[in-house]
Amino acid sequence: MPKIGLPAIIVNFKTYLEATGSRAYKLAKTCEEVAVKTGVTVAVAPQFTDLARVVNELSVPVFSQHVDPVQPGSHTGHVLAEAVKEAGAVGSLLNHSERRLPLKDVGACVGRVKQLGLLAVTCADTPQACKAVAAFSPDIVAIEPPELIGTGIPVSKARPEVVTEAVQVVAEANPGIPVLCGAGISSGDDVRAALKLGTMGVLLASGVVKAKDPSSVLLEMANSMLGS
Amino acid sequence: MPKIGLPAIIVNFKTYLEATGSRAYKLAKTCEEVAVKTGVTVAVAPQFTDLARVVNELSVPVFSQHVDPVQPGSHTGHVLAEAVKEAGAVGSLLNHSERRLPLKDVGACVGRVKQLGLLAVTCADTPQACKAVAAFSPDIVAIEPPELIGTGIPVSKARPEVVTEAVQVVAEANPGIPVLCGAGISSGDDVRAALKLGTMGVLLASGVVKAKDPSSVLLEMANSMLGS
Amino acid sequence: MPKIGLPAIIVNFKTYLEATGSRAYKLAKTCEEVAVKTGVTVAVAPQFTDLARVVNELSVPVFSQHVDPVQPGSHTGHVLAEAVKEAGAVGSLLNHSERRLPLKDVGACVGRVKQLGLLAVTCADTPQACKAVAAFSPDIVAIEPPELIGTGIPVSKARPEVVTEAVQVVAEANPGIPVLCGAGISSGDDVRAALKLGTMGVLLASGVVKAKDPSSVLLEMANSMLGS
Amino acid sequence: MPKIGLPAIIVNFKTYLEATGSRAYKLAKTCEEVAVKTGVTVAVAPQFTDLARVVNELSVPVFSQHVDPVQPGSHTGHVLAEAVKEAGAVGSLLNHSERRLPLKDVGACVGRVKQLGLLAVTCADTPQACKAVAAFSPDIVAIEPPELIGTGIPVSKARPEVVTEAVQVVAEANPGIPVLCGAGISSGDDVRAALKLGTMGVLLASGVVKAKDPSSVLLEMANSMLGS
Repeated sequence: MPKIGLPAIIVNFKTYLEATGSRAYKLAKTCEEVAVKTGVTVAVAPQFTDLARVVNELSVPVFSQHVDPVQPGSHTGHVLAEAVKEAGAVGSLLNHSERRLPLKDVGACVGRVKQLGLLAVTCADTPQACKAVAAFSPDIVAIEPPELIGTGIPVSKARPEVVTEAVQVVAEANPGIPVLCGAGISSGDDVRAALKLGTMGVLLASGVVKAKDPSSVLLEMANSMLGS
Repeated sequence: MPKIGLPAIIVNFKTYLEATGSRAYKLAKTCEEVAVKTGVTVAVAPQFTDLARVVNELSVPVFSQHVDPVQPGSHTGHVLAEAVKEAGAVGSLLNHSERRLPLKDVGACVGRVKQLGLLAVTCADTPQACKAVAAFSPDIVAIEPPELIGTGIPVSKARPEVVTEAVQVVAEANPGIPVLCGAGISSGDDVRAALKLGTMGVLLASGVVKAKDPSSVLLEMANSMLGS
Repeated sequence: MPKIGLPAIIVNFKTYLEATGSRAYKLAKTCEEVAVKTGVTVAVAPQFTDLARVVNELSVPVFSQHVDPVQPGSHTGHVLAEAVKEAGAVGSLLNHSERRLPLKDVGACVGRVKQLGLLAVTCADTPQACKAVAAFSPDIVAIEPPELIGTGIPVSKARPEVVTEAVQVVAEANPGIPVLCGAGISSGDDVRAALKLGTMGVLLASGVVKAKDPSSVLLEMANSMLGS
Repeated sequence: MPKIGLPAIIVNFKTYLEATGSRAYKLAKTCEEVAVKTGVTVAVAPQFTDLARVVNELSVPVFSQHVDPVQPGSHTGHVLAEAVKEAGAVGSLLNHSERRLPLKDVGACVGRVKQLGLLAVTCADTPQACKAVAAFSPDIVAIEPPELIGTGIPVSKARPEVVTEAVQVVAEANPGIPVLCGAGISSGDDVRAALKLGTMGVLLASGVVKAKDPSSVLLEMANSMLGS
């Protein structure tokens, strides 16, 4: 069972300069403030180097952006699930379309992450791929059509049938796994639409990270969750 | 010019549990103590998640184990040079045999790292490969025959001709780039042999990380550098 | 619907010298002879460079060992589904454990192959992974635990529960997709065991390719299919 | 020493439909006719599946587009140097920007190819990368700035300094290795410019493959070599 409240907004900081280092901390603080003010779960996925500080100084749930399918040992430059856990993360994104995993490694990564009591949020680009990743029993599946990422064209409004189908196939393949959607989400309306389609929240990045006023965008999104 | 004193010992923490999280901090502190006691440069390369704490609480030079060839932007799960810099690292290992880069990306990564004033320590597995990476003008080249990594059979004693040839071809291809060697290094003798072959130090991992008493091994290594 | 008769034996030639060039032709001819003699389907998967000759000179069904997820165009060194089709192959192996695909590309490759009327034989290493690949609706799923590949320890006898579970989860996830099993298969007994577990045949390599007498091994296997 | 006459035109068929299957044969025949008519070396690099037929039915020198760094054995879906050789190729392109190799594998592939008496034509995207690949002693280095590939903007005219520098650094790093250039080459003028910059010919693709009249374009290019 997910250890984060649902529905949720997960903000993926990617490698945006606006969300790196001290700005990662600042943006995570904004997320925390919106969460406190609204009671809505707002989680963050900063870069690996920023994980520990955000965990240590804030109360917001923190995800890693990726974990490698390796055991502790002789692996240079890899992201170890144990390290992510000891840094205090609650889980990890896996198989993001910008960090694709071999099918076999999706299973290995979900296994490693869950074995440590962390949440596996596994991404997929199509309903078919959602069904496929659901076979590995992640905690959450996130559907993100890559062609809409960063466009501001919200998947929840432009491709509602994709989201609906993802929700349905995941429910059939592995009942009880919540689905998030992402790509192009940048307003409260987009979030509301996502929830209406059966998702339990959104995974987003530029819509918040590159917003002129991330705080007000997030607040609008959180409020739209309350109103649903 | 390298911003770390040479000769140097660089300890690669890899994804060893003995060098993860609080144990990464503790091992880095041991490195610092040996450096302070002997005056020899001892640098560390902890995992990404441990970089910032080691930098913030200790005075030892810190390297990243890897940097991705990406610019700031829409890249999930990647290691951004700017993030490594803001975390306070002095540089990064690149192209380690456990994190091999496409030839083209070696150039891109060295470029990204140097552009930010960080040190590029580029690894290669053979003298030929050392000559190749030297073409990209990294700050330091480290030769590590992968078949000796983790064996305790020191490259500096078992394959001295490989080290000598690496030193020579790098000097010819791009004069002024110091060469380190690694693989199997686990004693002061191994380090002394490495310096005699013309290297400016060693890159090592298990010889220290998995030693019963890392402090005494490191002290012996540092002292062997002083005696050379 | 598969265009090859089932149950079937598919012989993967890999990059074995014993099955390269003129020896690929010779081994394929042996497969043809056994097929003719017994009436059992024996298909072959030679290297790309050997596909056309085997197709042109023999009547045995020919598979490619891999297809890349690319459209026709500016892709150097890739394997185009259209080229495999024009060479006369009936289909392709996909996602073999020695040629793993990103989860997303499994879908793309199955799509490309099926779109051209070719058979997609998609490999997976565990029942979970079989369920995952079944989401992409390949024509055939082949389960091969990589730790048994090339060992001579037959999956159908050493790990019958793995095969049974694979057959079951594929039937649930996407009814009608036949399952083959592979790894360690080297005798008629192994094949008989595979069929008893609910598979529609075997995918094998060294058991035939590196046999002293491939013809007699294949004949034994084919006969065990008839006797089942 | 290269076993093909220099200067040369190498036509990379990529995965263009216009150069797949029977159309690969037809285009290779056009290349042969131009070679016969002018006496200029025109070599082709068709897809793996088309190699054998082109070799068997025509006299034009044939290159593979890629070779994997594997030994004969248990490797599915890989391109074995021995198979390419037995198919009758004279060599292989390596490390094309559309099929990039880890730095370490460039050495392994050049080694495998040369060990079999085949020609290693190793690609690189910048002068620095040319210097790097020259360290592995390929038979020919081909410089192709990827941003110009397929544009019709000829590297030899738009970026002459890149070509000149490539020629120079290769000569310094490993004297005697001829340099070809590619990207945007689509006319006799472009080829003439390439030779004037010190190259020994061109590596091209769309300029011929997608030309309305490949024969006349090639003839113009070959004649421009004669006139130089």
